[in-house]
Amino acid sequence: MKEKKPNEFPKNIEIKGLSILVSKVGIKNNHREDVAIIVFKNISEAAMVLTKSKTCAPNIQWLKKIKSSAKAKILFINSGNANAYTGKKGMENLIKIIEGLSIKYECNPKHVIISSTGVIGEQLPVEKILNHVNNHRIIESKQNWGLLAKAIMTTDSFKKGSYRECYINKKRVKIFGVAKGSGMIAPNMATMLGFIFTDANIDGKLLKKMLLEAVEKSFNKITVDSDMSTNDMVCLFSTKSINCGNFKSHKNKSLVQFKKNLEEVSLDLAKKIIVDGEGAKKLIEVNVVGAKNDRDAKNIAFSVANSPLVKTAIAGEDANWGRLIMAVGKSKAQIKQDLLSLSIGHFPIIKSGELIKNFKEKNISRHLKKKEIFINIDISIGKGKCKVWTCDLTKEYISINADYRS
Amino acid sequence: MKEKKPNEFPKNIEIKGLSILVSKVGIKNNHREDVAIIVFKNISEAAMVLTKSKTCAPNIQWLKKIKSSAKAKILFINSGNANAYTGKKGMENLIKIIEGLSIKYECNPKHVIISSTGVIGEQLPVEKILNHVNNHRIIESKQNWGLLAKAIMTTDSFKKGSYRECYINKKRVKIFGVAKGSGMIAPNMATMLGFIFTDANIDGKLLKKMLLEAVEKSFNKITVDSDMSTNDMVCLFSTKSINCGNFKSHKNKSLVQFKKNLEEVSLDLAKKIIVDGEGAKKLIEVNVVGAKNDRDAKNIAFSVANSPLVKTAIAGEDANWGRLIMAVGKSKAQIKQDLLSLSIGHFPIIKSGELIKNFKEKNISRHLKKKEIFINIDISIGKGKCKVWTCDLTKEYISINADYRS
Repeated sequence: MKEKKPNEFPKNIEIKGLSILVSKVGIKNNHREDVAIIVFKNISEAAMVLTKSKTCAPNIQWLKKIKSSAKAKILFINSGNANAYTGKKGMENLIKIIEGLSIKYECNPKHVIISSTGVIGEQLPVEKILNHVNNHRIIESKQNWGLLAKAIMTTDSFKKGSYRECYINKKRVKIFGVAKGSGMIAPNMATMLGFIFTDANIDGKLLKKMLLEAVEKSFNKITVDSDMSTNDMVCLFSTKSINCGNFKSHKNKSLVQFKKNLEEVSLDLAKKIIVDGEGAKKLIEVNVVGAKNDRDAKNIAFSVANSPLVKTAIAGEDANWGRLIMAVGKSKAQIKQDLLSLSIGHFPIIKSGELIKNFKEKNISRHLKKKEIFINIDISIGKGKCKVWTCDLTKEYISINADYRS
Repeated sequence: MKEKKPNEFPKNIEIKGLSILVSKVGIKNNHREDVAIIVFKNISEAAMVLTKSKTCAPNIQWLKKIKSSAKAKILFINSGNANAYTGKKGMENLIKIIEGLSIKYECNPKHVIISSTGVIGEQLPVEKILNHVNNHRIIESKQNWGLLAKAIMTTDSFKKGSYRECYINKKRVKIFGVAKGSGMIAPNMATMLGFIFTDANIDGKLLKKMLLEAVEKSFNKITVDSDMSTNDMVCLFSTKSINCGNFKSHKNKSLVQFKKNLEEVSLDLAKKIIVDGEGAKKLIEVNVVGAKNDRDAKNIAFSVANSPLVKTAIAGEDANWGRLIMAVGKSKAQIKQDLLSLSIGHFPIIKSGELIKNFKEKNISRHLKKKEIFINIDISIGKGKCKVWTCDLTKEYISINADYRS
C-alpha cells in the first residue's frame, strides 16, 4: 500500500471461451470507456451475490428474478449511470437493453446479465446504448482485461485486477477477477462490483456455494463508510473450457485448491477496494478472536471498523486505544471487561482487562505511522472469530463527498 | 443555530432543597472547574438512564447495582477523567470516593450518585479528590447553575441548560436541566451527560417512567457519530420541596403538563448537544412517517442520520437525494420502492417512488444553505413514525478527532 496506484494489474492472461468488448458509448460525459460486453462462446455457468439494499436498482431486481445459479451468454456492464431509483421507465429501459442483446446474440433474455454503476435517479441514454448494441461487432482479439477493469471504474483511482491459477484433478485452471469501488461516489453514490471468470468447467450451483463462501470472507468483510449501494454485485462465471471432473458437492477434495484460490482473488480485489477507499491513506485489519461465536466476533469487528472515532484516530496516527474499547463496548456482542485483551501491531495494550504495566505508547505510535495497521482483540470467552478490513477516515473523504458537485 | 455559543442559559433560577458546590480540584490540568457536588437537603428521589455500553465505567457499574429508582443525598460529578477501563483499581478508587462522601454527609453510600467524564484508561487522582471531599464546606449561597454546567464540560464549546416551569394541581413546579456532550472527545472519547432537577415531590418510580419516556424522545433520538460512550447517563432528581399531590401512576392527568415540560427540557438539551456536535455547522431533523411500525421508522431514521454520505452531502450543501434513497435502502426496515415519498424542507423530490416532474434542484439547494435542515420520508405502508436529529459531517470533525493530541 505504498501508493494509491499499485502497478500490479495482471498481464497477458487469456481465459478460453470469452470475448471482451469495451466501448465509449457516451454515458459518461467525459469521453471515457463506459460499456463492456463480455460474450461467452458457449452458455456459461454463472453465480451471483447481489446487494440486499431495499432500494436496489432495476438490474438487481431483474437478476433476483432470474436468480441464483443462472447461466449467461452475455455480461453487459455500464458505468456512469446506475439506473437506480428510476421508476417504471428505468425498468422499461433495462428490458429494452436485455431484448436488444438477446436478439443480437440469439440467446434467451434470461442469459443476459446486466450490471450498472454511476449516477442515481437519472434515466439511461437507452437509444445510444441500443444503437451500440445493434451495430457493434465482436472481433476475436486478445482479451484486454485492463480495459475491462477501466470501463467499470467511476471515481476509482486505479484498475483493480487479480489472477490465480491452480490445479483441479491435474488440469490447470485459471481464475481472473476485476472489481471496482471506492466508497460511495460519483456523484450520488457508488457501487462495489466484482466479476470473476474461470475456465474450470464446474456446475453453477457449486460455483454459487463457493462464491458465497469466498464473498463472506472478502467482500462482506470490508467497509469504507458502512454505506451499502443500490447496485452492488459480485459474479463468478465459468466458460467451461477446461473439463476437470464431475463434482456433486463443492466440498469435494479436488476443489480445495480452487476454492482457496477463488478466496484469494476475492480478498485481493476486496483489499484493493479498501486501499482505494475515498481519502484513505491506511489499510486497517481488525482481527477479533475468542468471541462467544462468529456472529458476535463479526459484530465487534465491524463496530470497530465502522467507528468514525477509531478511523479518525488512525488517520491522525494517534494511539487512542480508549476508542477501541468504546467501539467494542457499543457492539451488541457478549463481552466481559476483565477478560478482554487488546494489541495494536505486535504491541499489547490491555491484558485480561488491565492496561499492561510496561505499556509504551511510543511503540504503538510507531506502528500507526505505517500504511497497514493491525488491531487485534481477544474477547477470551469462546471460539468465535472474524477478520475485517477498513481504511482510515480523513479530511479528503469529506472533500470528495461534500464538495463533489461544487 | 445562528452561532455556536447560544447566549441563552437560563438565569436566576432557584430549585428549593439543593446546594451546588463547584471547584477546581486539579483533575483537568488547565486549572478549570472539574468537580461539582450537589447536596440535597433531604434525601431526593432519583431516576437514572445509564449507557448500555458493555465496557461501561466503574461508576456506571456501581449505579447499575444500586439501580433504577434510587434515592440520592449527593450527586458528585467530575470532568477531565472518565475513570473508564481502569480495572480493579478504578473500582477501588470509586468506592473510596463514595465512602468519603457518605462519611462527610452522614448518608448511606447507596445515596451517593457518581458521574464521570473525560479521559479513558487513566486512574483518578483519588487523593486530591478525597482531600477536597474532606475539607470543602458547602455554603448556602445562590445556586450557580452556569458554573455547574461549566464544570461538567470537556470539549463542549458552550454551557447547556434548559428551564421550564409548569403547574401540577395548581402548584407551580420547576424543572432545570444541564447537559454536556459534543461527540466523543477529550482526548479519548466523550460522554453525554444530562442532569435534570425538579422541586415537584414525585415518587422515584414515577420519575423513572417519565424520564424513560422523555429520554426516548430526546437523548435517544440524537446522533453525532453513532458512537456510544462508556459513561453516558441522564438523571432526574426531585428535591421534594413542593407537595403537589399523591400519584399512583405516571399516567395521572395532573402530570400531563409536567411530562410535557420534562420532555421539552430533555429535547432542548439534546438539540444543544447536536448543535455543539464536533465540527457541526447544521442541525438536521430526519422525520420518518408511514413505516410498518415505530421500530422500522427508527431504523430508517437512524440509517439516514448516521450515514456519512448523507452527512457529508449536507455539509457540502449538495442536493444529493440519491444518498437519502441509499440510506433508506440499507436499513433493515420494510419498504416498498414504489410507495416511498421524500422531501427536503418543503420541497417534494420523490412522490410514490418516482422523481416528481417539476423537480427543481435549486429549491433544495436554497434550503440546504440554512442552518436547520429538514428531511421528510414517507414510507406509506403503515403508521410507524420517528423523528431524530443529527448534524453534518465536516472536515472540522476530522480535525478535532484526528489531530486532538498532536
